[in-house]
Amino acid sequence: MLTLYFAPHTISLATHILLEEVGARYSTVRIDFKSTEQRSPEYLKINPKGRMPALVTDRGILTETPAMLVYVAQAFRRPELALMDDPFAFAEVQAVNSYLGSHLHVAHAHRMRGYRWVDADDAHSIAAMQRKVPQSVGESFAMIEREMLKGPWVMGERFTICDPYLFTLAQWLEADGVDPKTIPKVMEHRQRMSERATVKKAIAAELSGQG
Amino acid sequence: MLTLYFAPHTISLATHILLEEVGARYSTVRIDFKSTEQRSPEYLKINPKGRMPALVTDRGILTETPAMLVYVAQAFRRPELALMDDPFAFAEVQAVNSYLGSHLHVAHAHRMRGYRWVDADDAHSIAAMQRKVPQSVGESFAMIEREMLKGPWVMGERFTICDPYLFTLAQWLEADGVDPKTIPKVMEHRQRMSERATVKKAIAAELSGQG
Repeated sequence: MLTLYFAPHTISLATHILLEEVGARYSTVRIDFKSTEQRSPEYLKINPKGRMPALVTDRGILTETPAMLVYVAQAFRRPELALMDDPFAFAEVQAVNSYLGSHLHVAHAHRMRGYRWVDADDAHSIAAMQRKVPQSVGESFAMIEREMLKGPWVMGERFTICDPYLFTLAQWLEADGVDPKTIPKVMEHRQRMSERATVKKAIAAELSGQG
Repeated sequence: MLTLYFAPHTISLATHILLEEVGARYSTVRIDFKSTEQRSPEYLKINPKGRMPALVTDRGILTETPAMLVYVAQAFRRPELALMDDPFAFAEVQAVNSYLGSHLHVAHAHRMRGYRWVDADDAHSIAAMQRKVPQSVGESFAMIEREMLKGPWVMGERFTICDPYLFTLAQWLEADGVDPKTIPKVMEHRQRMSERATVKKAIAAELSGQG
């Protein structure tokens, strides 16, 4: 059986939703960011990177959301969730998820995790990063709006592993200072996702602490 | 036939090497970063993100190195280069490549592309980012050394799509201020890669301008 290590309000929600989508049997372990439990010796044994999420499987431990999403789709015999029957379509899925991880999520992280890239006590630079986030995250969402999100789902008519990933990142856009009116397709997608039973269940589990 | 848009000294080398590994017939187009050709109207039609690389296929245009590497392996019927016969092993490959793209490459980018995350005229913050690069890139390579690189290749006995990706990023570690002596396995891997005929050919083509 799978065990998902998660923390509320982090990217772990994407994998959590997908586990619900495929009807997986799984357990969860909540990691408390407030007490920086993600950097505790116990959690570092699970994920030496000290990041969320981690997925414990019978074969070993997986990290990195793009990898975990494909794995869940394959492990539960739902390769169509990653369009894996078609190498080009699969590559497009992977390109979107790679962009979400290495561009959009990275831009977002400069608001609260700027210490990764400048000294933590450099208040000027930390603040400068935070000021840029509305622009950098906004441009990333604008790119998604214009070039990637086909509608009604990210890849078009078929729901894929891109959808929970984009949805999770879109949870944070107002806090990042992005104007929702500039990205109507992203906002419609977020609303559409929020109405799915699987999404409601994953969010409720994370917020209730019953995970 | 495939066309690879590349620029010397960028991450496009990873895909370039893999095209040589699979014996692909392909053409190349060199993009000149010195004249910021990657943001020219012509190139933005190829890749609206204005980044390297892009791979033009009969089906459409692909971007994002982790996606392109899997695509090339599949398109040339070499799925074993991504360990795709085993969903868990494939997920491990994807996890490494996701880490390389969203952690190591991102840390590196703060040395020369800091303007993505702070205002370009904020000299203090740009310099602060540059000063942190030896530490942030160094920690990322240390994580790879300790947790990911199995040897002799990244995934162990089998050469995979992780190898040209790590090799390409490892080209830049001295310029990033990382001490090679702290990461002997990464350095051995880089040397091992540099001796492959495919790697020599891809590098020579990029540097000669003959693509």
